Amino acid sequence: MSHVLILGGDGYLGWPTAMYFSIRGHEVTVVDNYFRRNACKQLDTGMLYSIPSLIDRSKIWHEKTGKEIKVIIGDLNEPEFMRGLFNGKAKYNWSLNQKFTGIPETIVHYAEQPSAPYSLIDYKHADITLVNNLRVTNNLMWALRDYSRDTHVIKLGTMGEYGTPNIDIEEGWIEIEHKDRKDKFLFPRQGNSIYHTSKIMDTDLFWFGVRIWNLKVTDLMQGPVYGIETGETIIDERLNTIFNYDEVFGTIVNRFIAQAVVGYPLTVYGKGGQTRGYLNIKDTLQCVHKSATNPAKPGELRIFNQIMETFSVNDLANKIFKIGNERNHNVKIDNIKNPRKESESHYYNPVYQGLIDIGVKPNYLTDEVINDIFKVVEKHSKNIRKEVIFRGIKW
Amino acid sequence: MSHVLILGGDGYLGWPTAMYFSIRGHEVTVVDNYFRRNACKQLDTGMLYSIPSLIDRSKIWHEKTGKEIKVIIGDLNEPEFMRGLFNGKAKYNWSLNQKFTGIPETIVHYAEQPSAPYSLIDYKHADITLVNNLRVTNNLMWALRDYSRDTHVIKLGTMGEYGTPNIDIEEGWIEIEHKDRKDKFLFPRQGNSIYHTSKIMDTDLFWFGVRIWNLKVTDLMQGPVYGIETGETIIDERLNTIFNYDEVFGTIVNRFIAQAVVGYPLTVYGKGGQTRGYLNIKDTLQCVHKSATNPAKPGELRIFNQIMETFSVNDLANKIFKIGNERNHNVKIDNIKNPRKESESHYYNPVYQGLIDIGVKPNYLTDEVINDIFKVVEKHSKNIRKEVIFRGIKW
Repeated sequence: MSHVLILGGDGYLGWPTAMYFSIRGHEVTVVDNYFRRNACKQLDTGMLYSIPSLIDRSKIWHEKTGKEIKVIIGDLNEPEFMRGLFNGKAKYNWSLNQKFTGIPETIVHYAEQPSAPYSLIDYKHADITLVNNLRVTNNLMWALRDYSRDTHVIKLGTMGEYGTPNIDIEEGWIEIEHKDRKDKFLFPRQGNSIYHTSKIMDTDLFWFGVRIWNLKVTDLMQGPVYGIETGETIIDERLNTIFNYDEVFGTIVNRFIAQAVVGYPLTVYGKGGQTRGYLNIKDTLQCVHKSATNPAKPGELRIFNQIMETFSVNDLANKIFKIGNERNHNVKIDNIKNPRKESESHYYNPVYQGLIDIGVKPNYLTDEVINDIFKVVEKHSKNIRKEVIFRGIKW
Repeated sequence: MSHVLILGGDGYLGWPTAMYFSIRGHEVTVVDNYFRRNACKQLDTGMLYSIPSLIDRSKIWHEKTGKEIKVIIGDLNEPEFMRGLFNGKAKYNWSLNQKFTGIPETIVHYAEQPSAPYSLIDYKHADITLVNNLRVTNNLMWALRDYSRDTHVIKLGTMGEYGTPNIDIEEGWIEIEHKDRKDKFLFPRQGNSIYHTSKIMDTDLFWFGVRIWNLKVTDLMQGPVYGIETGETIIDERLNTIFNYDEVFGTIVNRFIAQAVVGYPLTVYGKGGQTRGYLNIKDTLQCVHKSATNPAKPGELRIFNQIMETFSVNDLANKIFKIGNERNHNVKIDNIKNPRKESESHYYNPVYQGLIDIGVKPNYLTDEVINDIFKVVEKHSKNIRKEVIFRGIKW
């Protein structure tokens, strides 16, 4: 049993990750400032159902499992608050057991603004994204440098850092031969949004920290995640994770399923040839857990491409069209003018082997999996507001 | 005559750049928040002489040349202040002519915390560096997007973004062939400080803006600058640029000359094989001016390596040792334990041809040039405080 600290523990991935580690016997503490929930309120985004506060979730978790997830509410943008997690100044907002357990063996860093469209609403949202994502990462890096160089950080990157290059995408690194000499470098990165660019910055920053201070970092280059239920959320529906079906925070598969359920045509941007790697939320949990139990070494920035299969937007639309119509929804596909500047037809061949090698067993986007998501969305379909699905954020 | 806006117009390079453009008939406006001066005061760094306020400098410039340099004092970290430079809300703090002249053709962006040691004093200074440098750049990018996509931005990068790779350093870009496919990418970057990493982030951010919004950007990957006098500072010594001789803000050649003059052994870090590209402050002015008069095209991130020759630290120490002793100073060289984690012996072969191709005529670090810097430093030698030269900032 090790101590796992989850930064951003209230989010779509953060809360299920907390339960996943907790049920497996780890001591878990989550930290969040409710950034995501507040942003959802401010932007009036679409949430499929409401969720209890993080403290209430933790109480429900304890009632149902006897396990404790400690909660700390605060803003990790503040250097002193971040440092308080390491120097004994942090206070639990709620805890069954006041014992302070000291330095975590593993930190999972999800505490970032995670949406490309959010980052491009306007200059203010770009500023919030860059400042939040970079400061939290920098504050974490310095806290590790100053208090705990032996703690393993698992940070979430994104496949979007690589963009869509015309060469195969390796797992984070590439050897370049040039004019008869060679060296190994971070694989070239060029993000297609301010959000994705902020994640490139995180990688650059941790690569500095790893080289200079021998930090232990795993960077998970994750593709868009889909899904709603995990092995732990099904214990009680009040333990469900936040589920957005809107353009700002709703990831594409989840959003398309909600659109199918309420008869809102699936919004394919342009030609729909945009290809990306995808994974089930259950696999995010597996990947993070396997990374934690097989940590990076001191002075290692270990990078995994965290996807299980690749699809074009057309592939996804067609899958959801098929299942949706089988389930008696009236599903249409609408190829709208692309609000983004991006390639709609391109080469895409990423390597994704490292996580399989440490024991992850992929879940794939089967008809059964799609049907299971449909069932949950249908159950809450009365909550879906069509008018907030598409907001027309352009770049 | 075009309108040139200089962000960070009070700094070591900013003020001489303003005068260089002004004397050549351009309309010049400088913006600064005195960050550098305040940091010098707070850290008690070594300044060879005091300098008038930016507004006083501008008045002296007008008395001596009849030319006007408009001054705006404010913090470009604030999005609304940056936008005020484009939407008519900015006010000149001092001006002979109140007429607002509208959108600049050229913006020179120097408004960054420019010191690697400063960025590694502690977590607070790392935070200040990252937040300042990134926000100013992002605020600028969005102001251009929203108000003035046709304005050409000349931003200062640094050769330190590339680190010391084992392959030749091209000018910003590299074609990579991998598994029988190829594509062109930003040349790999890995900075050796938080400051250098912040400049990588600037490049990443503008590369996004250039691709998405067709901005026109020139990124000058500058090496350490040396020198003190320019064609304009010699008009009146009150027009001198800020000159630091300390570890935090003093660049190596300038600092070594000050150390030589006061009998403080030249502090070579470790073996002294660290090799970098250098240039005279006069060449910075030429490079920026030639870049302005030969602008980047819409949708182009044009990158030049802005150095004129390369030296190891030992080369520099030996040159200054020789001239210093010829000038009857008692110069010693002290190979101290390296306070930084860096290669002390490495391959280094950067390309630097692009600026020559657009008409820059290099000045080199000749004995005469070194002697000229010595003369100015000797004149102010009573101001040099030995105790602030070396501060022992480690990383």
